[in-house]
Amino acid sequence: MKYLKHSVEQLTIAYQLLRWTLIIIPVSLTVGSLVALFLWLLDEVTHLRHQNGWLLWLLPIAGIFIHFLYKKLGTKSEAGNNLIMNEIHQPGGGVPAGMAPLVLLTTIITHLFGGAAGREGTAVQIGGSMAHMLARWMRLSAADVRIILMTGIAAGFGAVFGTPLTGAVFALEVLAIGVIRYDALIPCLIAAVFADIVCTAWGIHHTHYQILFEQNQVLFHFVHFDFLLLIKVVVCGVAFGLAGALFATCMGNIKRYAKEWIRPAWLIPAAGGCIIIAGCYLLGTRDYIGLGVTSPDAGGVSIVSAFTNTDISPWGWLWKLLFTAITLGMGFKGGEVTPLFFIGATLGHTLAVMMGAPVDLFAGLGFIAVFAGATNTPIACTLMGVELFGTTHVLYFAVACFTAYYFSGHAGIYSAQRVGVPKSHHID
Amino acid sequence: MKYLKHSVEQLTIAYQLLRWTLIIIPVSLTVGSLVALFLWLLDEVTHLRHQNGWLLWLLPIAGIFIHFLYKKLGTKSEAGNNLIMNEIHQPGGGVPAGMAPLVLLTTIITHLFGGAAGREGTAVQIGGSMAHMLARWMRLSAADVRIILMTGIAAGFGAVFGTPLTGAVFALEVLAIGVIRYDALIPCLIAAVFADIVCTAWGIHHTHYQILFEQNQVLFHFVHFDFLLLIKVVVCGVAFGLAGALFATCMGNIKRYAKEWIRPAWLIPAAGGCIIIAGCYLLGTRDYIGLGVTSPDAGGVSIVSAFTNTDISPWGWLWKLLFTAITLGMGFKGGEVTPLFFIGATLGHTLAVMMGAPVDLFAGLGFIAVFAGATNTPIACTLMGVELFGTTHVLYFAVACFTAYYFSGHAGIYSAQRVGVPKSHHID
Repeated sequence: MKYLKHSVEQLTIAYQLLRWTLIIIPVSLTVGSLVALFLWLLDEVTHLRHQNGWLLWLLPIAGIFIHFLYKKLGTKSEAGNNLIMNEIHQPGGGVPAGMAPLVLLTTIITHLFGGAAGREGTAVQIGGSMAHMLARWMRLSAADVRIILMTGIAAGFGAVFGTPLTGAVFALEVLAIGVIRYDALIPCLIAAVFADIVCTAWGIHHTHYQILFEQNQVLFHFVHFDFLLLIKVVVCGVAFGLAGALFATCMGNIKRYAKEWIRPAWLIPAAGGCIIIAGCYLLGTRDYIGLGVTSPDAGGVSIVSAFTNTDISPWGWLWKLLFTAITLGMGFKGGEVTPLFFIGATLGHTLAVMMGAPVDLFAGLGFIAVFAGATNTPIACTLMGVELFGTTHVLYFAVACFTAYYFSGHAGIYSAQRVGVPKSHHID
Repeated sequence: MKYLKHSVEQLTIAYQLLRWTLIIIPVSLTVGSLVALFLWLLDEVTHLRHQNGWLLWLLPIAGIFIHFLYKKLGTKSEAGNNLIMNEIHQPGGGVPAGMAPLVLLTTIITHLFGGAAGREGTAVQIGGSMAHMLARWMRLSAADVRIILMTGIAAGFGAVFGTPLTGAVFALEVLAIGVIRYDALIPCLIAAVFADIVCTAWGIHHTHYQILFEQNQVLFHFVHFDFLLLIKVVVCGVAFGLAGALFATCMGNIKRYAKEWIRPAWLIPAAGGCIIIAGCYLLGTRDYIGLGVTSPDAGGVSIVSAFTNTDISPWGWLWKLLFTAITLGMGFKGGEVTPLFFIGATLGHTLAVMMGAPVDLFAGLGFIAVFAGATNTPIACTLMGVELFGTTHVLYFAVACFTAYYFSGHAGIYSAQRVGVPKSHHID
């Protein structure tokens, strides 16, 4: 009898996995293809902006345009990632299908005119809204809608960074702080893998980062471990966590105070655009606007250059933090994660130079750990380190991500994130 | 006010992390050193047994000796890993300090006379009992005892396999099915890292496994992904999960029926020893007893040989499964994990040969996935794949581990494991 029950259970699981695989194929195809389109457009407009410097002057007008576009076509879509997360926590209102084209278009506009923003928010929203649309077509139950939304997040995230495993774990981990549930992991994993395959099949290439540093430290002839390096990693982990918290706080406050002080509302993105322009001219560089993965100038600050020995301004991370917080807090569209990579990589670079540590390793640690702190997803970020930089330093990845996670507080950049297990609950 | 609260929270966390680091240092030193002693002894007795084949004949007597040793010195310690897990779920009875020497001694005896067993159970019990002893000395509160016990598991597991990150995640993941809480992760990580460093500092080397296979498949000129291989991985994942469930069921049933049918109780290990001896002579090989990491014969079946192109008996995995279930189910001591590695690696090897897949990759997948299925720890096992075999195939690691996890049912080898989120709760 027990064996029978066991077999029935396993047959049910097999059937459900097969069913989910079939459900997920259209999700992955749609999301993977749209993300590929998005990444290709992003590349094109970034190129265009680099060649036509005057486009930056139109940023305030672009902001007003984005404002009215959302007012006209998608008041509900404005909530972005939080809308999708809330829908997973408590299904009800639904995610509008129009969110995908709207966020795609407005992110491209933001990048074309030089807003400082990222990609993952857009990809996640494309994933969530497409998944919800397909769920409506397939008439899925409320419980299934919850899972398909998570697969949409996983597909979007996995495809946009070329890191499917991270995408799948991120989709589970981002929902609540301090706890991860596995129930949707296999569907999420399938979705992220397929979406990444689809995106790559469209000819999209992802930037490769390299950590060349190799540890070769022997203490007292028998301890093969660099304790000093570990301590430096922990110290930086604290800094990365605080930077993540600072970013979340800044963006939240800018959003709140802009709404309070600037009326009418369409003036907010216009003012934001003007501040960005003024900032560029005050600092005398455009390295901190746009995506920031590469820089058009040879000696410019970018994520890629943070991994090399080039000279980087020690406050570069702070400028990027402020530019991004203003861009996203004042009505432009895009993700937060690529700027968080930038902030982390440059902060890691600066701290490494200050402490005499390997620059490429610490740029890599910052890359993943600031993100871990700001989004409260330390396991996904550790896996991202593995997927992007290889396995050699996985221990430092984990230490940096979890330290940052502990020191970033409970705020985070997603207001819809719930507290599963408080960070200092069992500790104090 | 909010900032003040935030700062206070972060200072509290900083203080607690510092405090835990100090608490953990003695735990890591003790556990790391004892595990080093254990691994060294294990190596010595395995060598001794290989050179003196007649030792196997004494296995029944050794079993009786172990039986009376536990009856005299540690009736409570008999519960082993489950005792430690129960103590974490519901602190109360405590973990006897005598558990560590007792399990160390009896595991060594089991291996000296040719029982088929592993190492992790012993290391985890050393970790748990030493941690509990130190907690009593330091007069820690009940909440702290819970965390220090988890650090003990992490330290033992991390040191015994040389995989600290896996050890830390295993300690959190093994407690409940389908959910992972982070609250003790940093202490566990510190404990596992230090214990591994201590263990390595004593001169212990861990076996290295290599997966040389490299994927280089292009479909229709634009899809850089081997779908056929992915399907093979999923099929094998199901097989690995079922093998894990079979092992758990076999061991449970052997334990139950032996207790019911064989009286007096001391006859159980004697009978077990006799069955092992008979099995060795019936099969004409001693490859399935002992640890099984390497074989004394050049063409013998072992974990290492499963990664190579040597001919392996297609039922090798089943023999190992039965030998281990008899050894551990009938009163001998040791862990289950190394035999699970053996079962998985040989089953993976056999399936790879049958399906025309790369043998080393599938041996590696089986290595981690049968373990993932039997202990319900898919995330720890995916990380173990990364720590042992590198990052190239991390996606297949995750797919194999999670498929095995879904198909292994809710039983598992640890009866003290609780169900956090049922495997088919949201799916059906």
